[in-house]
Amino acid sequence: MIRPIEWTEEGVTLIDQKALPGTLQRITCRHYGEVIRAICDLTVRGAPAIGIAAAMGIALAVKGMPNEPPESLTVAFDRVCAEFAATRPTAVNLFWAINRMKQSFEKWRRDEHREALYDRLRKDACAILEEDIAINRRIGRQGMQLISDNAAVLTHCNAGALATGGYGTALGVIRAACEEGKRLRVFADETRPVLQGARLTAWEMMQEGIPVTIITDSMAGFVMKQGKIDLVIVGADRIAANGDTANKIGTYSLAVLARAHSIPFYVAAPLSTIDLAVADGKEIPIEERNPEEVRTLAGIPTAPSGAHVYNPAFDVTPHDYISAIITEEGIVRAPMNLGIKTLFTQ
Amino acid sequence: MIRPIEWTEEGVTLIDQKALPGTLQRITCRHYGEVIRAICDLTVRGAPAIGIAAAMGIALAVKGMPNEPPESLTVAFDRVCAEFAATRPTAVNLFWAINRMKQSFEKWRRDEHREALYDRLRKDACAILEEDIAINRRIGRQGMQLISDNAAVLTHCNAGALATGGYGTALGVIRAACEEGKRLRVFADETRPVLQGARLTAWEMMQEGIPVTIITDSMAGFVMKQGKIDLVIVGADRIAANGDTANKIGTYSLAVLARAHSIPFYVAAPLSTIDLAVADGKEIPIEERNPEEVRTLAGIPTAPSGAHVYNPAFDVTPHDYISAIITEEGIVRAPMNLGIKTLFTQ
Repeated sequence: MIRPIEWTEEGVTLIDQKALPGTLQRITCRHYGEVIRAICDLTVRGAPAIGIAAAMGIALAVKGMPNEPPESLTVAFDRVCAEFAATRPTAVNLFWAINRMKQSFEKWRRDEHREALYDRLRKDACAILEEDIAINRRIGRQGMQLISDNAAVLTHCNAGALATGGYGTALGVIRAACEEGKRLRVFADETRPVLQGARLTAWEMMQEGIPVTIITDSMAGFVMKQGKIDLVIVGADRIAANGDTANKIGTYSLAVLARAHSIPFYVAAPLSTIDLAVADGKEIPIEERNPEEVRTLAGIPTAPSGAHVYNPAFDVTPHDYISAIITEEGIVRAPMNLGIKTLFTQ
Repeated sequence: MIRPIEWTEEGVTLIDQKALPGTLQRITCRHYGEVIRAICDLTVRGAPAIGIAAAMGIALAVKGMPNEPPESLTVAFDRVCAEFAATRPTAVNLFWAINRMKQSFEKWRRDEHREALYDRLRKDACAILEEDIAINRRIGRQGMQLISDNAAVLTHCNAGALATGGYGTALGVIRAACEEGKRLRVFADETRPVLQGARLTAWEMMQEGIPVTIITDSMAGFVMKQGKIDLVIVGADRIAANGDTANKIGTYSLAVLARAHSIPFYVAAPLSTIDLAVADGKEIPIEERNPEEVRTLAGIPTAPSGAHVYNPAFDVTPHDYISAIITEEGIVRAPMNLGIKTLFTQ
């Protein structure tokens, strides 16, 4: 299985997703600042993966501060958490993971330091990774019921092993269906500007021998009209309490197109992607990234130099465009707000 | 004014649109085979521009066959026309221009060769170019009525001066509105895979000082939802008798998105883009291009090597998604089949 993030003796080891599909190379972050940089520059990306990387990065930071007295340790710990929280605003798994590390820290304080803080946090970060993989497998088992044999599935961006601890959310559902013996064909939107679909999803599917066809984002409507697509499945970066879903830019267009062609549109995500503190999509902050992502590709200009660019990294799909949200605890359909509430009170 | 195609003493001079926006360079085709190659490799592109280039290319071919006896001249002429007809299948202006050159050839035969064939065809090809610019200005004057001051206009691909003899169809309407003193803002879809929007439309607008913002194709739905777009205007490669319109891949998605947001969707094209021989969009042949257009950008891989790609260059937008078709003879609205018939019988 592809594991994009690993804890090693030396630090946090990441698959460099910028280098894929050309090279499968790993970098090791020995200082938490390197993890922060890796999150910001998309060496590691995908909502669950960002959360895992941040948790491990926080543990790594604590490794570097062994002799802090308790008071200044708290200050230093909070500062590190704040630094991770400032990396990327949209994916809520980041804040979820940071909070979990904060709770771990609090528990350690209350436990009167019976164990070294570093050991505690390292174990917790590694647990988040392993839990994420287990959760993805449960999402896969839930979601595969929705996919029939011989289905053609359109996906956007990369909600695969690379975007998570391993296995994936949207691609995890595809994997689970294939493991069950279903024969699927995958269409992958290339997902400009960073091409996570063409570079990462296509690569993951090819690694597994699942038939995949890359299309440009602009082709989605036409392939739906041609009857080539049976369902759409995507991941999520943050789901509001009412089911409105922030995900990679272009997801909303896909949802509108899917509805116009009466094609089911599914979101696959762990509960850690659901943000009950946010009532609806309007409250989800949308990251705008460097216009150079659009103006250049691998350093080659794709537009006039200095051209004005609008580069939101995410959009919000209103819940009424979503046929179902697939989580590890079950599948939620309309009315989504009630279904989501139930997930958390089971 | 930007003139992408010119007839010169030496042959057919073309702006190399592959080199834009990096360099504004011209190449001169001294042999008709070079014009054919320029059409195939997108040195010259855009339905009206392809027609003009083919007409000039045919004249250039005849220049190279001065001493043919009449019988073999007809054979050679027909062969050249067939070679041009085989370059690209979707844009009907190509076939329209070839037919016009064939009619010119027939007329020359009936006139008993009073003028050299080459002179006749050269003049006709140059007339097609000048007429096209005049037609674009008329399209512009018709279409600008539909655009109010301060409007934000989304366009796709490049239906500008570069796609025509000069001035443009969709961008001609924008130019005409701006010349009339209207202040417009243009959003240009980058238009993968060949990036005609980011490379060519943005460049044209920046040359004219018309404010332009590049977005990736996947962002169109989100910017519509944000209320940033007042209307969509695109060109066309072939319009069927019922108004169904083939245009650059992604146009259909835009039309569906425009309807979902109650945004008017306009097509601007000359009568030579309307193919009365084709009853509806199902009969329009859709060119599939080399998958390397999607798998690489300027030679840099953007996907796993050998990944399967679907690369239709065009799609068809059903007439009922089109608010109006803007031609030099007037604006056609539903019922489109009747309106289109009227255009040709005025």
